[in-house]
Amino acid sequence: MVTSEKPASRPQSLCFNVYAKDCPTRMVLDRLGDKWALLVLDRLQNDVVRFNALKRDIHGISQKVLSQVLKNLERDGLILRTAYPTVPVTVEYSLKPLGTTLIEAVSSLTHWAETHMSEIQAAQHLYDASKG
Amino acid sequence: MVTSEKPASRPQSLCFNVYAKDCPTRMVLDRLGDKWALLVLDRLQNDVVRFNALKRDIHGISQKVLSQVLKNLERDGLILRTAYPTVPVTVEYSLKPLGTTLIEAVSSLTHWAETHMSEIQAAQHLYDASKG
Repeated sequence: MVTSEKPASRPQSLCFNVYAKDCPTRMVLDRLGDKWALLVLDRLQNDVVRFNALKRDIHGISQKVLSQVLKNLERDGLILRTAYPTVPVTVEYSLKPLGTTLIEAVSSLTHWAETHMSEIQAAQHLYDASKG
Repeated sequence: MVTSEKPASRPQSLCFNVYAKDCPTRMVLDRLGDKWALLVLDRLQNDVVRFNALKRDIHGISQKVLSQVLKNLERDGLILRTAYPTVPVTVEYSLKPLGTTLIEAVSSLTHWAETHMSEIQAAQHLYDASKG
């Protein structure tokens, strides 16, 4: 569905192509390509985490956005939601096996800027100076 | 800056913390956590690509969004923009060394759904059935 040389060099057996607008993979990328989803998945790496702990640890995320992100990730089969019949109800989230197949890429991308921030800032200063 | 056990287990030497709202890394994650930026970076893996080819290959991206994504990635030092004085001007983009440090994670994340789409769809059907 893509006409350039690059996608043609990818395995012919792939039925799905994220470069194609109407491919269902594009919707998944839409959800993963979101800083909140990346931070939630990263936070669940190696941990079972309660809703309130997620909200506390990921600074700036609203209750509404966190709920929606968790619902989408649960629906896609990436995370498991477990509710315990306490009063008030306790809800915990953890990665499912499908989510763990993604976690290395998520973690690399999420934390990349932490180790490269000085290079990024140097590039930004150079760029701004060249445009000023 | 983050109070849970998880971030405390990360190296103390890191000055930057993507979980913190006002950390500059959060702005970078905001730009990388965007499906268009991921697709542009992925398309530039191993290739020098003209603006019009990027627009053609990444189905559904608008000229305006592509321009903005490229400008941000150039400012962050991830990609190189080269203009040739042809008529009309030819503009090519390629990854810079800083961008290549990120490309494996980008590519894994971007193409993940292509190899896991049947599992995702099965999960979605189960989820929808359980809510119906």
